[in-house]
Amino acid sequence: MSSVKAFAALDNSSPLVPHTIERRDPKPHDVQIDILFCGVCHSDLHFVKNDWGMSTYPLVPGHEIVGKVTAVGPHVKKFKVGDLAGIGCLVDSCRDCDNCKEGLEQYCSNGWVGTYGGQEKDGSGATYGGYSKTILAHEDFVLKISEKLDLAASAPLLCAGITTYSPLRHWKVGKGTRVGVLGLGGLGHMGVKLAVAMGAEVTMLSHTPSKEADAKRLGAHQFVLTSDEEQIKKVTGYFDFILDTVSAAHDYNFYLGLLRTNGVMVCVGVPPAPAQIPAMNLIFGRKSIGGSLIGGLPETQEMLDFCAEHNIVSDIEIIAMKDINTAYERLEKSDVKYRFVIDMSTL
Amino acid sequence: MSSVKAFAALDNSSPLVPHTIERRDPKPHDVQIDILFCGVCHSDLHFVKNDWGMSTYPLVPGHEIVGKVTAVGPHVKKFKVGDLAGIGCLVDSCRDCDNCKEGLEQYCSNGWVGTYGGQEKDGSGATYGGYSKTILAHEDFVLKISEKLDLAASAPLLCAGITTYSPLRHWKVGKGTRVGVLGLGGLGHMGVKLAVAMGAEVTMLSHTPSKEADAKRLGAHQFVLTSDEEQIKKVTGYFDFILDTVSAAHDYNFYLGLLRTNGVMVCVGVPPAPAQIPAMNLIFGRKSIGGSLIGGLPETQEMLDFCAEHNIVSDIEIIAMKDINTAYERLEKSDVKYRFVIDMSTL
Repeated sequence: MSSVKAFAALDNSSPLVPHTIERRDPKPHDVQIDILFCGVCHSDLHFVKNDWGMSTYPLVPGHEIVGKVTAVGPHVKKFKVGDLAGIGCLVDSCRDCDNCKEGLEQYCSNGWVGTYGGQEKDGSGATYGGYSKTILAHEDFVLKISEKLDLAASAPLLCAGITTYSPLRHWKVGKGTRVGVLGLGGLGHMGVKLAVAMGAEVTMLSHTPSKEADAKRLGAHQFVLTSDEEQIKKVTGYFDFILDTVSAAHDYNFYLGLLRTNGVMVCVGVPPAPAQIPAMNLIFGRKSIGGSLIGGLPETQEMLDFCAEHNIVSDIEIIAMKDINTAYERLEKSDVKYRFVIDMSTL
Repeated sequence: MSSVKAFAALDNSSPLVPHTIERRDPKPHDVQIDILFCGVCHSDLHFVKNDWGMSTYPLVPGHEIVGKVTAVGPHVKKFKVGDLAGIGCLVDSCRDCDNCKEGLEQYCSNGWVGTYGGQEKDGSGATYGGYSKTILAHEDFVLKISEKLDLAASAPLLCAGITTYSPLRHWKVGKGTRVGVLGLGGLGHMGVKLAVAMGAEVTMLSHTPSKEADAKRLGAHQFVLTSDEEQIKKVTGYFDFILDTVSAAHDYNFYLGLLRTNGVMVCVGVPPAPAQIPAMNLIFGRKSIGGSLIGGLPETQEMLDFCAEHNIVSDIEIIAMKDINTAYERLEKSDVKYRFVIDMSTL
């Protein structure tokens, strides 16, 4: 075991503080990473505050992790010391169910192990995330990170990137697809970049007029102010696919109305209350509403390679570790363009 | 114009009564049909009672129409006098929008013309349905009916058949697909027969134990009593596709829980209140809920041909025209196995 410096929440109401955790020595298939940057996902904040009722403390958040390999177990084939590497939202799964065998570990029937706040399958205790100096995991759960991209700005690809990439791919978004992206935040801004790179015609849907310039800068072909009736009329029955990244309460039926026949709306955000959907709003136009959760390991690697090929990273604001609590306050107000990334050398 | 004997609702609260309507003479593309049988759909009852707030009176219901061609306009190519022919839920559409051009007339962007309770595109007034001696329509909206099948039992294919066939085809149900059919009524019993013929593994989901024998007789491979926890446990996370034919209030989330990863639940019934769906129930397992409305003309013909090939008709109870009001009373109590069909020679 080795002692590792980290930042942790010790309960659900105090600020994050410096904390020391114990990490295991590398097992034969483990890759050990010196963490250089870690993205700040809104889930981190939900976990810190125990919003989903499943947090255990001390809690070390962080699942958008990039860094350099410092050690590998003797059976590791994919990585060598010195390589860039990343870890996303999961560090293990059952590896045995149909979903795991298909590379859909995010839907593991027996429950995957979260990078933080999870329980190691070998019974060795809680998992701790990327707000720390080092991390290690089985090589199957470690991703290759391209040297071509800005490293800090690559970190959010591990969660915000794959969360938006996976549904775009699963529902076959590409050339000729009219995509609406709902919500311009950490997820939405990646959704715009990725859908544009896939060749789709991309429209940002937002109720904030000031987001138009940014949406266009990110590559959106069109901006629609959702409070403007005239603009909405033009895109009624228009979209093949709407990527809904909004976690605040909103009326799904309004957006279902913007779908054309056979259109699909996919939620990656989790609003506080259930969607209320009259069957008629799906039946007329053969519309669907679906959901999608991050992505499996093979698809996460595919996404990272796609981003390297298309020169896509996240728009980020780099912070020092000590400023995490202020960053959380700003995150709660959506005051970030569009992802905080912690420079882990400041820990 | 010619006077045609019919049965009509004169307002939203009286029984149906004998009534005489006027039908136009055949136009160059029209096919005129002597109606031999007409199915009784639950929509007929909704229209009679103006449950959907769009009925006009006198209202002559009936959109599961089969009969014999008695006259054709000079430009008609597909039919000749003496042919069997059918008319389903629509008798016209704009023919110009993208959906119409793709043969998805049921999703016509400019509004299709219902076989009854609609308004003719040429301004000539209301349309009247199949509870009448004759009907006529443009040949593009007339279907060929096989001589191989029982004619009376073919009538319900025009609505109940296509309503279940279309989503099964659109979502690519076939060999290897685990299909759950929810609700064993006019729609559900067709869903079972069609999904079985498509090669799927079919499970009837019902809260009525007495339906098991019938479900098996119709071809279902499995019957699951939804009130039995042990039986439900076995099909949790099991189905690729659930065809939800239920129009009574029910908890969609319960059935979403029976879907496996990537599973889709499609509603063809319209419950009185909106579905309440937490986004999490879609996100975990990348599930979708969709809707589907009857089918377009090309697909309706495809379904009729499929049924002729696989010897599929509806299970019916033949009634005389004068018994329609009693039949409606029984329909409201779901007391029919599984479709009433009116012998139009009794009018």
